[in-house]
Amino acid sequence: MFNVQLSFTNATIFQFSSSFMVQHHLQLAAASSHGWLRATPSDGHSETSVDKRWDSLAFNPVKTDYIYVMKSCKDGSFSNGGLRHYGNIEISPSAAVLNYGQGIIENLKAYKNKNGSIILFRVEENGLRMRVGADRMCMPAPTIEQFVEAVTSTVSANERWIPPSNKGFLHVRPLLMGNGPVLSLTPAPEFIFLIYVTPVRNYFEPINVVVENDIHRATLGGVGNIKAIGNYAGIMKAQAKAKANGFSDVLYLDSIHNRNLEEVSTANVFFVKDNTISTPVLGGTILPGITRKSIIEIAHSQGFKVEERLVPVEELFDADEVFCCGNAVCVLPVGSITLNGKRVDYGESGFVVSQQLHSALANIQMGLIEDKMGWTTLLN
Amino acid sequence: MFNVQLSFTNATIFQFSSSFMVQHHLQLAAASSHGWLRATPSDGHSETSVDKRWDSLAFNPVKTDYIYVMKSCKDGSFSNGGLRHYGNIEISPSAAVLNYGQGIIENLKAYKNKNGSIILFRVEENGLRMRVGADRMCMPAPTIEQFVEAVTSTVSANERWIPPSNKGFLHVRPLLMGNGPVLSLTPAPEFIFLIYVTPVRNYFEPINVVVENDIHRATLGGVGNIKAIGNYAGIMKAQAKAKANGFSDVLYLDSIHNRNLEEVSTANVFFVKDNTISTPVLGGTILPGITRKSIIEIAHSQGFKVEERLVPVEELFDADEVFCCGNAVCVLPVGSITLNGKRVDYGESGFVVSQQLHSALANIQMGLIEDKMGWTTLLN
Repeated sequence: MFNVQLSFTNATIFQFSSSFMVQHHLQLAAASSHGWLRATPSDGHSETSVDKRWDSLAFNPVKTDYIYVMKSCKDGSFSNGGLRHYGNIEISPSAAVLNYGQGIIENLKAYKNKNGSIILFRVEENGLRMRVGADRMCMPAPTIEQFVEAVTSTVSANERWIPPSNKGFLHVRPLLMGNGPVLSLTPAPEFIFLIYVTPVRNYFEPINVVVENDIHRATLGGVGNIKAIGNYAGIMKAQAKAKANGFSDVLYLDSIHNRNLEEVSTANVFFVKDNTISTPVLGGTILPGITRKSIIEIAHSQGFKVEERLVPVEELFDADEVFCCGNAVCVLPVGSITLNGKRVDYGESGFVVSQQLHSALANIQMGLIEDKMGWTTLLN
Repeated sequence: MFNVQLSFTNATIFQFSSSFMVQHHLQLAAASSHGWLRATPSDGHSETSVDKRWDSLAFNPVKTDYIYVMKSCKDGSFSNGGLRHYGNIEISPSAAVLNYGQGIIENLKAYKNKNGSIILFRVEENGLRMRVGADRMCMPAPTIEQFVEAVTSTVSANERWIPPSNKGFLHVRPLLMGNGPVLSLTPAPEFIFLIYVTPVRNYFEPINVVVENDIHRATLGGVGNIKAIGNYAGIMKAQAKAKANGFSDVLYLDSIHNRNLEEVSTANVFFVKDNTISTPVLGGTILPGITRKSIIEIAHSQGFKVEERLVPVEELFDADEVFCCGNAVCVLPVGSITLNGKRVDYGESGFVVSQQLHSALANIQMGLIEDKMGWTTLLN
């Protein structure tokens, strides 16, 4: 069985763990220091000379070749979408997305298998989730068929940016936003659907997490269960504080009791105790992650008992393992959790379950094992 | 003493009240039906032939002459700001504002007095609030001096768009946003400060409000107390439902007990009982409105007792008057409130206190009475 680089020996994990504490878990190893990414300080992007040196991949925006753009019609349908050369877009200063945050995002990944075929993972699920989110935000959305076609088209056009699967993948970011001008608080008269892609590296190192007591990422009756852009900037302050204190990321609690687990900043959270894997139940504040859903199905198939329920934070201190999961990180072990100054370390067991679930999912996504779940789409 | 047109007779108020129920309180009287606003469906703006027909003003985006643009430097300071002809801006698809909602707004107004001088209202307060909001959202911000200078410059350059004060005012919208590209959730590497202006009409008609039970606009530990763009799109769904049911706007309750008043969609709320005026206390979820603050000071000076405290929604049913206030609406009486199908109508007293406070504030803002509070800045 193929293993993801850097992943599957405890020695390697701990080597990364100690140096990782003060850095964001997705921004290790500034690629520019390797000399092959030409920084362009004028716009903050990196420009990459493709097809070599994939070892230097990080998790930064890269100017790839093409973006996909499609606009809404008056009846709320979308049409005439197509590829454009990568570049800035034009937008009105009074666009609803800039003034009132009317925008949602999605995250997907594309790997390349050993035969050179491109693999997409559960892309229809992302298209469906975008439609659910759009409805909550009073936006029209592309159909699932349009979504899948747009992702396929964008990934194929940027094929040369897909790393070898043992190095990384193509991160795919669809955006849907109100770009038409408004003055009062009202949905935009026009919407734009856009996709851009960036090559990023695989990732599997334990992160050190601090539990946040003051800042909450969501509330009942809010938009925490969709990928609204407004969910994210409000937690940057907690992340910044955590990093300043030497942590990798933040674990948020519910906003009513300040006790039950919600999410890590941009990932769902799970814990393992004996043969049971538990994760916060979807109750309106938690993102229904597609990786979360996949991990639950894999865990079931591997004989674990899976519980979706309210999880008081104290339970983590008795856990065998804690991990989070999301599109970019797949499954990421939590090396330690700190709550009110009390730190609990995990990993004595070698993150066996986290590794096992990571392998099972990553190997499907990379095309290294047969996809018995029917989750992948092959291009070419 | 000068009175704002349409405002101060009960007959006029009730005439508007009945026809107003099914429309948004800031979008009455589609100006294009008057024939002098040339609709440009391609971009959703209206183009106005200025200096005539101010009677047709609405609350829609208008292409005025100039916007103000200033970018951040690497050290977080802002410099080299200046005016540009009104038009679209360019932005990266991976800008932090588009992907993670890293943006805040402000609202101000500029009137013209009978001598032709331009009047700004408490502009330093907006500059300060933008700095507080920026800090919460991990953004650098212009200094208060830069903010005031930018507003002054933008309003002066668009002077011909300022309506006569009995017709309307120039709505001033500063934006601060992360326009630099990011991939992971992290503050943008570059920020843009932008101001645009639009002429809008004065407004004083009672609105019919419905209390929302399911959707909340803010939570403790969130960003409801700053003007984060993400606060707004999440409540469009509640507004749309309210309008579909014949209401003008929505009153939100706290997200924990679903009982205490928070805000109307984009305005603070007050109620009057005998000689006491009460409003929800600022506790982290409520915007510290500059109009709110001004009304509290005016009410004190007029001999009212003012209470800032938790206000259970039931208290509204025993109120003499209810009003909301904000930059655009100044003071706006609430004609009725509906909670769980139970409707209470106000206005038998003629909205006397609402009118009194509206006059006191509006007359200062329009330069019709001496500004003993030191709140206004005269240009020219």
